[in-house]
Amino acid sequence: MGLAERILAGDLRAAARLMRDVDDGFASALEELKVLYPHTGRAYIIGITGPPGAGKSTLTDQITAAFRLQGKRVGIVAIDPTSPFTGGAILGDRIRMNRHADDPGVFIRSLATRGALGGISRSTGEVVNIMDAMGMDVVIIETVGVGQDEIDIVRMAHTTAVVMVPGLGDDIQAIKAGILEIADVFVVNKADRDGADRTARDLAVMLEMGKRQEGDWLPKVLKTEASRNKGIDELVAEFENHRQHLFSSGRIDHFLREKCAVVFSEMLKDRLFSAVLDRITADGRFNSTVESICQRDHNPYSAVETMLAEFLNRPATSL
Amino acid sequence: MGLAERILAGDLRAAARLMRDVDDGFASALEELKVLYPHTGRAYIIGITGPPGAGKSTLTDQITAAFRLQGKRVGIVAIDPTSPFTGGAILGDRIRMNRHADDPGVFIRSLATRGALGGISRSTGEVVNIMDAMGMDVVIIETVGVGQDEIDIVRMAHTTAVVMVPGLGDDIQAIKAGILEIADVFVVNKADRDGADRTARDLAVMLEMGKRQEGDWLPKVLKTEASRNKGIDELVAEFENHRQHLFSSGRIDHFLREKCAVVFSEMLKDRLFSAVLDRITADGRFNSTVESICQRDHNPYSAVETMLAEFLNRPATSL
Repeated sequence: MGLAERILAGDLRAAARLMRDVDDGFASALEELKVLYPHTGRAYIIGITGPPGAGKSTLTDQITAAFRLQGKRVGIVAIDPTSPFTGGAILGDRIRMNRHADDPGVFIRSLATRGALGGISRSTGEVVNIMDAMGMDVVIIETVGVGQDEIDIVRMAHTTAVVMVPGLGDDIQAIKAGILEIADVFVVNKADRDGADRTARDLAVMLEMGKRQEGDWLPKVLKTEASRNKGIDELVAEFENHRQHLFSSGRIDHFLREKCAVVFSEMLKDRLFSAVLDRITADGRFNSTVESICQRDHNPYSAVETMLAEFLNRPATSL
Repeated sequence: MGLAERILAGDLRAAARLMRDVDDGFASALEELKVLYPHTGRAYIIGITGPPGAGKSTLTDQITAAFRLQGKRVGIVAIDPTSPFTGGAILGDRIRMNRHADDPGVFIRSLATRGALGGISRSTGEVVNIMDAMGMDVVIIETVGVGQDEIDIVRMAHTTAVVMVPGLGDDIQAIKAGILEIADVFVVNKADRDGADRTARDLAVMLEMGKRQEGDWLPKVLKTEASRNKGIDELVAEFENHRQHLFSSGRIDHFLREKCAVVFSEMLKDRLFSAVLDRITADGRFNSTVESICQRDHNPYSAVETMLAEFLNRPATSL
């Protein structure tokens, strides 16, 4: 029995193994993912992001506990800060969320490397798909930071929570602007700290200033103290409100279509490039082209146009 | 006279115009960049990165003043936090570094959008090339944050400074790990604050733990107070030390080759994809494929393989 069949039969070890194969870029993983794909699309995906130190892991832990009380199975994909050289996760699966470690209804996976199959967002997508096919009712994607990678990742989620803490200073203004539009709910965590009300008020003001269309979802600002389990039920209820809005407004169709378009486009881009790179690496032209660009004998723009003319099977007149 | 010729003749307006065209993805910009390319490769490129609030803009301002005293022309590319929807810079060129605004030896450009020609790192690379061809002796790239985008960007620089401030707390550990290897010099700015010595010591310990090879550059940790112009001369001297190390050790060859390889690869990837996307968009197959993936009638992996077999001009047997 292949990994995919074993995963569909409930084998957790097979799931962990396939996730590792995806991360390592094994070609065999593609065949397994093809088998799993028709079984995806059922999980409700939640994105949790925000700056370091906002308490996202504790919050994820409490949200997981709340969903478990509802009898839901929860998958967690934690994107950890990565060293570009070692590719290792700073925080491993093992030290995360110990209290759920023995719960078979919770499956946790940390992702650190960008993933050989594509970028970190692609690897994350594949891991979410595997958890989805495993029958997880909810998949939580937790990322640190607010860069483009994180934005790409949380866009996969049906509902995204952006977590802030009081007193991060003026610079938070700059951070907030980048993630204002991706948040479906704002969480001011560590709400017992000084300035929590002000941070919540500032966020609410920014939200009102943001131009939204009639009928659009207006994100709420909720206060939590994750370490004392305060405000979690309200947050989980708000997730459900947003999910219902997605479906009742019909926006779910647009959301799913955009997501499929991104998945297909990114994959097509990576594999077109890999195929051409394999050929020009094998015949030595990658190295000689790079060398001539380095020496300024050729420019990279014309070199690329030469490759396009050669490898694409029709004259590239439209370029 | 085309934009490129005007730029080479010293026309600053033409440079600003071409940078805008690059950002807007105008096809005509490619032809101008081809003309400029042979005139690039002379500027010394410095990357400055670190978390929000570390005082990078003030530091860049002081470093610029120091280079100006040496008679060097300085280009500055400031990557600003971006809203994925509006694409607008939070901080415009105008409110940045006012004291250099009237100095013809300083050219400042803020980049906010990801750039239609490719990612933000590609747009940044083109703007750096334009500044290089303009005859800027030094180009400073300033980015916020430590995500993969920022790492890709500062890797273009000959010398990268990572800026920290005292007292960002435990979470700084996670941030630091991701950027440890890209830093050629660490700056603890706002060094008059409590905990500056401890932050500097922590960084030094992490650096010693990092596995480096014999003969490798060992980054120093320097303390600055940018707002009072303290420690700037030492920092600029350390930039020069690192530059000399790059050349005397011969590492410059490897660095330049890697950089050309990345530029060529990214451009090839983008344009292969664009060419195929144009075709399948024109004949309606992009939409129909996305729809069938969304409906789970097809899986994205097989759909991509079909496209590869069709558009690449030899059987894709190596896939």
